[in-house]
Amino acid sequence: MNLAETRRVLAEAVAATDPRLQELLDYALEGGKGLRPTLVFLCARFGIYDALEAGRVAAAIELVHLASLVHDDILDGAAVRRNRPALYRAYGTVPAVLTGDYLFATAFGLLAKGKKAVLYTVTEAIRSMCSGEIGQLKGGLAGPEAYFTYIGQKTAALISAACRCGAILGRVKRNQQECLAQFGWHLGLAYQIVDDCLDLFGSPERMGKPCRQDLARGLLTLPVLRFLAVTPDAACWRERLARGLEAAEMEELVEAARGLGCDTYTAAVAADEVTRALTALDRLPVNPVQDELALLAARTLAPLEDPDCPAAYPGMTAAG
Amino acid sequence: MNLAETRRVLAEAVAATDPRLQELLDYALEGGKGLRPTLVFLCARFGIYDALEAGRVAAAIELVHLASLVHDDILDGAAVRRNRPALYRAYGTVPAVLTGDYLFATAFGLLAKGKKAVLYTVTEAIRSMCSGEIGQLKGGLAGPEAYFTYIGQKTAALISAACRCGAILGRVKRNQQECLAQFGWHLGLAYQIVDDCLDLFGSPERMGKPCRQDLARGLLTLPVLRFLAVTPDAACWRERLARGLEAAEMEELVEAARGLGCDTYTAAVAADEVTRALTALDRLPVNPVQDELALLAARTLAPLEDPDCPAAYPGMTAAG
Repeated sequence: MNLAETRRVLAEAVAATDPRLQELLDYALEGGKGLRPTLVFLCARFGIYDALEAGRVAAAIELVHLASLVHDDILDGAAVRRNRPALYRAYGTVPAVLTGDYLFATAFGLLAKGKKAVLYTVTEAIRSMCSGEIGQLKGGLAGPEAYFTYIGQKTAALISAACRCGAILGRVKRNQQECLAQFGWHLGLAYQIVDDCLDLFGSPERMGKPCRQDLARGLLTLPVLRFLAVTPDAACWRERLARGLEAAEMEELVEAARGLGCDTYTAAVAADEVTRALTALDRLPVNPVQDELALLAARTLAPLEDPDCPAAYPGMTAAG
Repeated sequence: MNLAETRRVLAEAVAATDPRLQELLDYALEGGKGLRPTLVFLCARFGIYDALEAGRVAAAIELVHLASLVHDDILDGAAVRRNRPALYRAYGTVPAVLTGDYLFATAFGLLAKGKKAVLYTVTEAIRSMCSGEIGQLKGGLAGPEAYFTYIGQKTAALISAACRCGAILGRVKRNQQECLAQFGWHLGLAYQIVDDCLDLFGSPERMGKPCRQDLARGLLTLPVLRFLAVTPDAACWRERLARGLEAAEMEELVEAARGLGCDTYTAAVAADEVTRALTALDRLPVNPVQDELALLAARTLAPLEDPDCPAAYPGMTAAG
């Protein structure tokens, strides 16, 4: 199968001679839902593609994703990822920086064997991801506009790149590549909005990591920005957020936000993005893959509706 | 001129829309002696090459070098680089990780436009650099063999890659590419041995950074390994090194090592590597560039002999 092939390429690509390095790499590779590789394969199916090449590109994009997670966890000070300590907590910051670098280099090694347009697409996505993280470092998130710029750069760029790369591999026409990239962009936005919504309103069991992490590090995501826009106590909450919330205050904010319908609002914005993704799909010539992509997009919203359905698409591992 | 062209490509490539990011990038780009870009151009001149393409590759390899310095300084806990605070000290670890990532991605963006063989060569060098750093993290350096593996992966790999890329750009024959890569490898080893020698025996004014840094973080470089091999008090020193040396003890070690000729020994090993580099050059068909490369290799040793000559090759900036 496609994703099994990706897993195999991935494991082979990161094989290291040093056992210490291998331990770090294995740790970084574990888990992963395989959204981006799935998108590469699905979008490639709009045309005729080489499965081996697609497996390499899918693996490379997943590596870029995993590398960025390893580095982001350092940046965010995140303690837990996928129900385990974040790599830098388990092994230290220094090995984590290096593991991320090694994964990035491995990804480029895989891409070096393929099409330049693919390599260029992924490179631009990484630059975008870095810009997003750096832009957010000092600025916080002032309002919805900054929020959308941030999640676009941080999340949607690579998901869109995965779709575009698939399309390039399938040799589909330029304007259709654009449609699939657009689809990925809006899917990525929806995906991140859902994630941010779950981080605020969800439970740690559901997420496989502690909740309210964005709030704890002063990152104002969409539901919080909505809350500040509709609560009569906005000035007071802004002050409290600026100095950092206690755990009890966080629960208070979450309850108040729920009372004002900020969860429903956020879910509606995510649904809007899914609609935009589907609109982009509709501009493509009819193809059976469209239904699969549409299903995948719709499933992005599932975790908001059904608490027992955290996996939004076929998982690459049993862990989802 | 070649290096001016490289600087221009470099500045253009890392132009960011975000002023905060630009500030970080400018900081990371400052200084740099331009050894690797110089080697790209010199080796390309063994054949016929496209100057624009060579400028891109030279800039990309310099970016990889600068990115690795930014990350390495975090890893090493280094406070000062080129007479200024290391980037992560000036701006924080998080921005430094991201700046390094951005520089890496930018380098690959430049390489994406060119030959795959070049991209692949650089990718392998980066993997090697990461392996070296990770291998060294837990192990320390047990003896000369581990030391040579480490400096090979950490330093010689990228310098050798710069030479190989130049040769690829010049379309020189495969066996000649190999000779130039060999030249770069031994030059890189010599370069690092000299650096390690200066770190132990030199003065901060000369180095543009504090000395005895390797010793301070428990990294046993060649002169220290030699000292441990020849001093009658080896057992005692090993014990003291294992628990970490006080400043006075460091001076004591340096003086004792000097007394036992460890500085001369280390210089001789570096000179051996330069000889090996020159031998690799001799296997190439006669070409005026050989003399320039030979001069460059010989100059690597100059800082050990002449304290007033810290710049070993034509500098890319006034700062050398």
